Amino acid sequence: MTELPRIEGTRPVREAGVAAAEIPADATVLVSGFGSVGYPKAVPMALADSDRDLSLTVVSGGSVGEEIDVALVEAGAIARRYPYQARSPARAAANDGRMAFSDRHISTLGDDVQFGGLVDADVAVVEAVAVGEDWLIPSASVGHTPAYVDTVDSLLVEVNHAQPRSLAGLHDIYRPDLPPDRDPVPLSAPDERIGGPKIRFDPDDLLAVVETDRRDESYEFRDPTDTDRDIAANLRSFVTDEVERSPLFADAVRLQFGVGSLGNALMGALADADFGDRDLVYFGEVIQDGLLDLLDSGDLASASATSLALSAEGQDRLFADAERYAEDVVLRPADVSNRPALIDRFGVVAVNSALEVDLYGHANSTHVDGSRVLNGIGGSADFTRNAALSILALPATAADGDRSRVVPMVPHADHTEHDVDAVVTEHGVADLRGTVPRERASLLVERCAHPDYRERLQTYLDGALEGGGHEPHDLDAAFDWR
Amino acid sequence: MTELPRIEGTRPVREAGVAAAEIPADATVLVSGFGSVGYPKAVPMALADSDRDLSLTVVSGGSVGEEIDVALVEAGAIARRYPYQARSPARAAANDGRMAFSDRHISTLGDDVQFGGLVDADVAVVEAVAVGEDWLIPSASVGHTPAYVDTVDSLLVEVNHAQPRSLAGLHDIYRPDLPPDRDPVPLSAPDERIGGPKIRFDPDDLLAVVETDRRDESYEFRDPTDTDRDIAANLRSFVTDEVERSPLFADAVRLQFGVGSLGNALMGALADADFGDRDLVYFGEVIQDGLLDLLDSGDLASASATSLALSAEGQDRLFADAERYAEDVVLRPADVSNRPALIDRFGVVAVNSALEVDLYGHANSTHVDGSRVLNGIGGSADFTRNAALSILALPATAADGDRSRVVPMVPHADHTEHDVDAVVTEHGVADLRGTVPRERASLLVERCAHPDYRERLQTYLDGALEGGGHEPHDLDAAFDWR
Repeated sequence: MTELPRIEGTRPVREAGVAAAEIPADATVLVSGFGSVGYPKAVPMALADSDRDLSLTVVSGGSVGEEIDVALVEAGAIARRYPYQARSPARAAANDGRMAFSDRHISTLGDDVQFGGLVDADVAVVEAVAVGEDWLIPSASVGHTPAYVDTVDSLLVEVNHAQPRSLAGLHDIYRPDLPPDRDPVPLSAPDERIGGPKIRFDPDDLLAVVETDRRDESYEFRDPTDTDRDIAANLRSFVTDEVERSPLFADAVRLQFGVGSLGNALMGALADADFGDRDLVYFGEVIQDGLLDLLDSGDLASASATSLALSAEGQDRLFADAERYAEDVVLRPADVSNRPALIDRFGVVAVNSALEVDLYGHANSTHVDGSRVLNGIGGSADFTRNAALSILALPATAADGDRSRVVPMVPHADHTEHDVDAVVTEHGVADLRGTVPRERASLLVERCAHPDYRERLQTYLDGALEGGGHEPHDLDAAFDWR
Repeated sequence: MTELPRIEGTRPVREAGVAAAEIPADATVLVSGFGSVGYPKAVPMALADSDRDLSLTVVSGGSVGEEIDVALVEAGAIARRYPYQARSPARAAANDGRMAFSDRHISTLGDDVQFGGLVDADVAVVEAVAVGEDWLIPSASVGHTPAYVDTVDSLLVEVNHAQPRSLAGLHDIYRPDLPPDRDPVPLSAPDERIGGPKIRFDPDDLLAVVETDRRDESYEFRDPTDTDRDIAANLRSFVTDEVERSPLFADAVRLQFGVGSLGNALMGALADADFGDRDLVYFGEVIQDGLLDLLDSGDLASASATSLALSAEGQDRLFADAERYAEDVVLRPADVSNRPALIDRFGVVAVNSALEVDLYGHANSTHVDGSRVLNGIGGSADFTRNAALSILALPATAADGDRSRVVPMVPHADHTEHDVDAVVTEHGVADLRGTVPRERASLLVERCAHPDYRERLQTYLDGALEGGGHEPHDLDAAFDWR
């Protein structure tokens, strides 16, 4: 079989340095990339290596690799950064105030960029597996590339020969209508296809095509720990019971898992769950290695996401057999994969992690001690808010047991008590549905907190109860436990 | 014109006391009512007056009147209460822990009750303007009555002769499909109709019909204060500029306002806004008196909501002319009026209030000092999260100026920094879109805080900045200002 050409027609192919020189020093640059894959590499590296005095605003779909969030950050070239970062130089720059970082929900970012007064975009730089006269085919993630390409009048396309051309088969590009009279997204099942592989653009907008041959700097997942396995067992038991109980899950179970090693381990653990005759389906934002196992074993019927957030080994496995995986795997724009309306319509069971939860069910996913940002909220709230069943799964302690993740009051709330249905740790499950705040506190102390911290949490609660109130807090002592 | 009959066919009409006796002492009772109107009156009063030892769970659509949240609460008959209350006896009982109160988002409550493991419902008691063999027509609100009637096998209907039969013309009853394969709600414009006036039920479920002739204990709106007028002027100016700027509002402006005197005053003030040729349309959860003025003046093209949350005077005005108002006013089930997907599709501009906002844009709408609940979150988060433009409008101070409503850290978060686009007070507007936390803090101090509190807030901020971090907080001092 002859591979299809990567560059069709006569396109303006340039060296990365030449193309990068087209980007103004203070430009707002929209880049492809989500889940640490599918981001542009050559143009960012050329920018980082240039001796220009850059002050860029960089807006990605989600997390990207070292070429942007390490090299460009260390070059001091990024003044502002949206909406998510997961590399330590970018994190340090955000926390030091050297880089103005704004973390944003994923689902609405495309609209925000295009209409919302968020930024005034100058140029888009996007990675593709192929480009033609008025189209490109994205690589290992779709993210917000369709919205970004729509937004700008200047486009740079990086055709990456290290990404298989066959990834095209995974993509289902559908751009939602624009408000105020947008129609519903016509997706009636998680595995349905409503578009094709190509993102269209105005040929006049194409500044240049750059060729690269460089792999994504992808995720590394650690092996599951004993704690991961215990959390997984508690999660499996809770979800299995709920699937039996609720008519919502009579025919199928649709799951989403947050990105990261714990999420990856939890996915894998569901292979052992007994969901009877029900189809197990994934409708989330990232496909991690654990899902490939489930697909290969036949336990998972299909997977829909916006990114192949795989380890290098996982990439090898999928790339070697992309056409077969494309039968059951679909990559969508992030404003489809994370769309509140679809998460609701499909009755998704959402499983995300958090840094800590408080006695009443509020969760902090982003800011250590309330001040120091970790990565960003990403899609966690898109799913936690709109799922039929929203679960937070996390270890009961951090810092080798020196710190409880069940705390009196979170110093930063990303998910409120109104959105969290259940909390799962290695010690148990707190089913918070229908409970009132005082009941939630008891459940979280007794079932989720590490035994070493229960007395101390109860002491806080007893003190707060003396002051009364529907959701009793002692504001003088709320942060004393740190 | 002869009025249509209130009770069609031979229905089992009973005295309220006889009907109330059918309700078990520890029943979970789903009641109609939203925005303090359209709730059952005779059966709750009969329960409150009985000498039975009651321990009821009461789930309403939204806020209800004194017959439930005063009389039944004071009789000690309510053990658990969902999802909202706005009367001081209910509030006191929730804060004292005498009544287990759980506040919930409005949009998802119907699903939660029907499938979510929230409660195990026994009976529904709903107010109607008419009832037939297998249908009823709701009165001044729809709320979650369609879902509640679907959920139970035992139904009591109160036909209220004090509510005009002609309210039927306002109702558009459409029950969304059920997950996991629910279709989108097929509403393509805020004023469209996709149902009819009747809620259907299984005739075997009807325990009894009770007749009443008692008006709703409706809202009282205070006259706008100078502060209200200044907030309104700032809001009008901000929204007008945004309508000019954004392509989202090229054809129409769709607005939602929160319930209450401030919301009511803000609605009225938009009559003076210049939106050019654009249609002004309301898509919210409650219709308050201010909207009737706009409808009568021709400034408002149409209004969609789930409740006529009017003053007694506003009721008189609408009731006298219900057929004419029905041309432009539509009442929908709360899971349609508040549906995230529709708020998104219609590009709504949402204007809600809050008790306080913090330096980074998190808002507390529900808990005074973090502990004492006021009313509940209601629909505020449904709109704030899903609107095209989310505005919080509030006075800069409370307690006659003795307390700043812009605070270092909210002691309870209902809306996170990720969801609030702008904050408006009588002093100005902080447009938070695209900003990072440190920028938000400066904007809120300089433009929204009362001048008397700016120095103190800046002092907190300067201290927090010494500790560093993306969103700098000093946890030792975060609540010192109280």
